[in-house]
Amino acid sequence: MAAPASSAAALIPRSDRVAHFEQDVWSIFTPLALECQAVNLGQGFMNFPPPDFVVEAAREALLRNDCNQYSHPKGRPRLRNALAKSYGPLFNRTLDPEHEIVVTAGANEGIYSIFAGYLDQGSEVILMEPFFDQYISNITMNGGVPVYCPIRPTGDTSKNMDASQWKIDIKELESKITPRSKIIVLNTPHNPIGKVFSREELEQIGDLAVKHNLLIISDEVYDRLFFDHKNHERIATLKNYWDRTITVGSGGKTFGTTGWRVGWLIGPKLLVEPALAAHTRLVFCVNSPLQEAIAVGFEQADENGFFGGQIEAYESKREKLLSVFRELGLPYTVPEGSYFVLVNTDKIRVPSDYPFPDLLHKRPKDFRTCYWLTKEIGVCAIPPTEFYSKPNQPLAENYARFAFCKTDETLDAAIERLLKLKPFIKA
Amino acid sequence: MAAPASSAAALIPRSDRVAHFEQDVWSIFTPLALECQAVNLGQGFMNFPPPDFVVEAAREALLRNDCNQYSHPKGRPRLRNALAKSYGPLFNRTLDPEHEIVVTAGANEGIYSIFAGYLDQGSEVILMEPFFDQYISNITMNGGVPVYCPIRPTGDTSKNMDASQWKIDIKELESKITPRSKIIVLNTPHNPIGKVFSREELEQIGDLAVKHNLLIISDEVYDRLFFDHKNHERIATLKNYWDRTITVGSGGKTFGTTGWRVGWLIGPKLLVEPALAAHTRLVFCVNSPLQEAIAVGFEQADENGFFGGQIEAYESKREKLLSVFRELGLPYTVPEGSYFVLVNTDKIRVPSDYPFPDLLHKRPKDFRTCYWLTKEIGVCAIPPTEFYSKPNQPLAENYARFAFCKTDETLDAAIERLLKLKPFIKA
Ligand SMILES: Cc1ncc(COP(=O)(O)O)c(C=O)c1O
Ligand SMILES: Cc1ncc(COP(=O)(O)O)c(C=O)c1O
Repeated sequence: MAAPASSAAALIPRSDRVAHFEQDVWSIFTPLALECQAVNLGQGFMNFPPPDFVVEAAREALLRNDCNQYSHPKGRPRLRNALAKSYGPLFNRTLDPEHEIVVTAGANEGIYSIFAGYLDQGSEVILMEPFFDQYISNITMNGGVPVYCPIRPTGDTSKNMDASQWKIDIKELESKITPRSKIIVLNTPHNPIGKVFSREELEQIGDLAVKHNLLIISDEVYDRLFFDHKNHERIATLKNYWDRTITVGSGGKTFGTTGWRVGWLIGPKLLVEPALAAHTRLVFCVNSPLQEAIAVGFEQADENGFFGGQIEAYESKREKLLSVFRELGLPYTVPEGSYFVLVNTDKIRVPSDYPFPDLLHKRPKDFRTCYWLTKEIGVCAIPPTEFYSKPNQPLAENYARFAFCKTDETLDAAIERLLKLKPFIKA
Repeated sequence: MAAPASSAAALIPRSDRVAHFEQDVWSIFTPLALECQAVNLGQGFMNFPPPDFVVEAAREALLRNDCNQYSHPKGRPRLRNALAKSYGPLFNRTLDPEHEIVVTAGANEGIYSIFAGYLDQGSEVILMEPFFDQYISNITMNGGVPVYCPIRPTGDTSKNMDASQWKIDIKELESKITPRSKIIVLNTPHNPIGKVFSREELEQIGDLAVKHNLLIISDEVYDRLFFDHKNHERIATLKNYWDRTITVGSGGKTFGTTGWRVGWLIGPKLLVEPALAAHTRLVFCVNSPLQEAIAVGFEQADENGFFGGQIEAYESKREKLLSVFRELGLPYTVPEGSYFVLVNTDKIRVPSDYPFPDLLHKRPKDFRTCYWLTKEIGVCAIPPTEFYSKPNQPLAENYARFAFCKTDETLDAAIERLLKLKPFIKA
């Protein structure tokens, strides 16, 4: 049915910007999981519905015509007001909804817009590894150069670990800074480690940013998902860092609506302006009805205790998933936030003669482990080397990332299948 | 309430990419219209609701969880299938929903993604003036250089004209092409002229594209809005141009849902691939529930005759608006498509001592005419020099653009106020 590859098309070369993109992990594992009818703990979307009050708000918004037409590029006033009201106390300041908040098409487009607003050819961006994979293309598409510093496990990785044992070496981090460094990206709670950075760590990072005049992007899309009464500290509230920090949020992660594509940036007027300028040209504005629903979500959530209940639900899902790895004797990192678990797969013995497809032989070991898990055990996990620069991929090739933002039934089904791993685990 | 301008923020310079952006026309006229309670015929959004069957489809989609989570970056299969089915006959070919269609966050983000996928530093893009204003930033943000060729009125502009009398001089157009030219952008039906390009004109443009190996972007967001049984020709269906054409569409224009941010690209696999690669990194995917609703929209519209009825409604709105300009003796261009009317304002005598705000003195005359119209007559129109390169702005300073995608009540209110123009019109 497809038209034959046309000769003219082949003659119009794509830009250098996109020409080097490799096949991403999702386009390998999502179809694979489908094909094998694997329980998919790969991609981080919920397979349960968003809360009723948010869905109902969206359904009502659709009946109002202003909610069906272009909104202001900054975002609908109701959502900006709701964000200011909900986040003000968390930031310990009055947030100005006119100038300090921009609604974006998911956190993703918000982050892209910051890079578009700040990076020139050759500007460097300091990233910690593992990183959210979209950062890389978002930087390079805007002429920037990613520079990497790993977050390393500091304990005995053959035992269960706390996410807080994964640490940045602040000297190593500083050694990555050059006169071309412009931005440092922080992600807390962290995907995929589940680490929530401590105040002390944030101050070390913030002080570096001040010393070297870096803009801080604080990607806090999991800011409503932290566990065990742990306090999620925000770097924008510490010392004088507000002045140089743009905090990124996501309606998708906050209300279980990853497909609504509503996110936001919070920061001082002067800092968010360049991102708003880029965002306005990229997408003009975010879809209106779902903005309105997220506004209602915030208005009601702080009153009906939604966020607390959501945390409890995720804590129980986390425990469910961790219990099977305990039973299998596979060491894991206990996430303090987000909805991912990194599991140490070193003890899994994948049959050495297993017939892997060619495309996996060029990839690190974790791609083959996850492929085998998906195909033979029937549970799809994601190989975390995808979230590392090439030189540091060996750091992650003995891990797999499992998402627990799934129904209890799905997690139970996964557990049942994962128990089939037993004969393949080295004592 | 706003935080004082912070010193650190001032020290982190924005990128060259956004540093030169000027205040756009919308941020002047939208607040002005509000402030004066003017009838707003400025921005091209509908102030009437979308059709019930599309709204209901969105409300139903929200009750299905897969419609609330990430969709495939290419777009939800149901929408790609519906687009293939509806557009196949219009393109005289079977469209492959897997490889020849990409769903984007509005036409806008689709166009940005094409530029991101094709332009390198210094690549040139041929535009016809007047142009959709976002083209310019979308080109320059990706390192490209816009090159302009005006569409000129060829008749007596002091009389009413047909949109078809606005013409490209094909020699002039070819003279703009250099070895760096990579893309030519066509917009038909045209905003703001209302011109629907004839087959002959499209072939002249297409032949140039073939001769100079240019990619054609055919911006056809108004493709369901053409009048008087005129045939909207698609350049992708002529000669061998399919091979080098990406056609752009908009759910917002098609179903009166400008705030849903659903658009699409149609073209051969090899051609749309680089745009898909960029799009996937920019926004990852488009909001899911409204994609589903646009899918249902297409499934039903072709059966329930929606598009024909919509055209009739717009024809009657067009006639309503044109009638007042006839009565006033202000010459206009009769649009063959889209929902805009260009009116020749040369005969309007704005009082010479009228106190314009400073920011308008640096702008062409049409900014002052439209300001005065908004403030004193109470009807907001848009100055079309915003849609021209600086050197060609004099071509448009005697025009104003009025949108008729408004309720009959709004148009009637505008007419009543516009009649107050009479004493200001030179005989
Ligand atoms: C760390 C991190 N940042 C940003 C995003 C993107 O969020 P959104 O879906 O709102 O674009 C994700 C999504 O997985 C993420 O894990
Ligand atoms: C010619 C043209 N192209 C593209 C667009 C953008 O359409 P969308 O709202 O789908 O992004 C518009 C909107 O006014 C337009 O007039």
